[in-house]
Amino acid sequence: MKPELSIVKIGGNVIENSKELGNFLKLFNSMNGYKILVHGGGKKATELGQKLGVKSTMVGGRRITDANSLDVALMVYAGLVNKKIVGTLQGMNCNAIGLSGADANLIQAYKRPITDIDFGLVGDIKGVNGEALKNFLDMKLVPVFCALTHNSEGQMLNTNADTIASELAIALSANYKVTLYYCFEKQGVLSDKEDELSVIPHIDLTLYQDLISNNIISDGMLPKMENCFNALKSEVNRVCIGNTSMLRSEPGIHTTLTL
Amino acid sequence: MKPELSIVKIGGNVIENSKELGNFLKLFNSMNGYKILVHGGGKKATELGQKLGVKSTMVGGRRITDANSLDVALMVYAGLVNKKIVGTLQGMNCNAIGLSGADANLIQAYKRPITDIDFGLVGDIKGVNGEALKNFLDMKLVPVFCALTHNSEGQMLNTNADTIASELAIALSANYKVTLYYCFEKQGVLSDKEDELSVIPHIDLTLYQDLISNNIISDGMLPKMENCFNALKSEVNRVCIGNTSMLRSEPGIHTTLTL
Repeated sequence: MKPELSIVKIGGNVIENSKELGNFLKLFNSMNGYKILVHGGGKKATELGQKLGVKSTMVGGRRITDANSLDVALMVYAGLVNKKIVGTLQGMNCNAIGLSGADANLIQAYKRPITDIDFGLVGDIKGVNGEALKNFLDMKLVPVFCALTHNSEGQMLNTNADTIASELAIALSANYKVTLYYCFEKQGVLSDKEDELSVIPHIDLTLYQDLISNNIISDGMLPKMENCFNALKSEVNRVCIGNTSMLRSEPGIHTTLTL
Repeated sequence: MKPELSIVKIGGNVIENSKELGNFLKLFNSMNGYKILVHGGGKKATELGQKLGVKSTMVGGRRITDANSLDVALMVYAGLVNKKIVGTLQGMNCNAIGLSGADANLIQAYKRPITDIDFGLVGDIKGVNGEALKNFLDMKLVPVFCALTHNSEGQMLNTNADTIASELAIALSANYKVTLYYCFEKQGVLSDKEDELSVIPHIDLTLYQDLISNNIISDGMLPKMENCFNALKSEVNRVCIGNTSMLRSEPGIHTTLTL
């Protein structure tokens, strides 16, 4: 039987509030089995960019990454946020190791091809070094990934943290029974955006198509859900979406996705 | 027979010039055997601090680290500099992994005790996790350390890169025949500070004492040399001081230290 592995992705809402981050990390540390954390950087990168006079350009909800914006991402994601998380987890006796996709060649990517938009130094994932990750997990290390990859030719690339989480989940499903947790500010996928309590407890592929047709899943939620179903189609056991309370030993209300 | 391990420490002069850094990394990549890189951050941290309005206070040639300065160090050392080095090495097929002392609990430190000076969030090294490092080296990984450690209670600490290099060398000497290379802007230890060609090719403990008495070794060179002799007293095989040309397969002029 495959050992259980939890991959937890947290977003800006958790990272930006240091008290909330501390509470989350305690919860994360209390989770049993093998685990991996994936974090974005959120507003902190925008804030640093503003202080340094680096403008952040958004197209279709996606950040355009020029060389200066990439430097900001390297500083905030791989430096400030990643090492504070690792240091805090170490303080809880959780043997964390901070990683980007370049470290140990764990996540190889290529610069996103230019179509109508040139996203700049943004990476789409090409491959995950599952063997090296398994070695780290065998060493009882807890990998903490920031949202950066590399192109194997010396260039670091900004990469969507949701996608990193799902690609890691897919790559490790050969050796682990993987549950992928996407933490965000809501309790789950809502059937009514205006009603925070309208959490849909379970979504399968059929319901997913219905929800898209009825415009209940749209905008930023769409690529997130797409990542989830891609993962499920690639042998990931379970995907959960909700706030951090779903990580408790008695989980709070959240959405579970299956095929 | 123990396998050979080279630990190379580079300073600000190499890091601040991207062309020089590129040349150095090519040279580093060409070195045979197991290897580890340790880097400082130098002026880049001061520059970022200035842009962000974080003042850097120096006492006795040592930087005082308050919470804001530590954030700058996390961003520059662990983020910008470390990941650019790792990305560049990966582009050369060198399987680098960027690390701080918090990652995998590799270097434990304590906040430097307050005497006449409170250095702030500065760490003195307490222990090195040689076993985890050996596992990484066995995986054919090339560790790239930035100058940050942690106190095992959740606090990251700014730590002298020279000391990190020597403590790593000491911890790994049980399993490896370690050569410790300190790269700086000069070709070696000079007998006449005004004469760049007056490199002393070999210094043993007796000569070292003489050089201190005659004020030939002083200021910033003194703690550097102290680190070197501490390492040699703790079974490190050889310490070399000079510019990066000493890393060539036919090494340039440099200073070698032995007991």
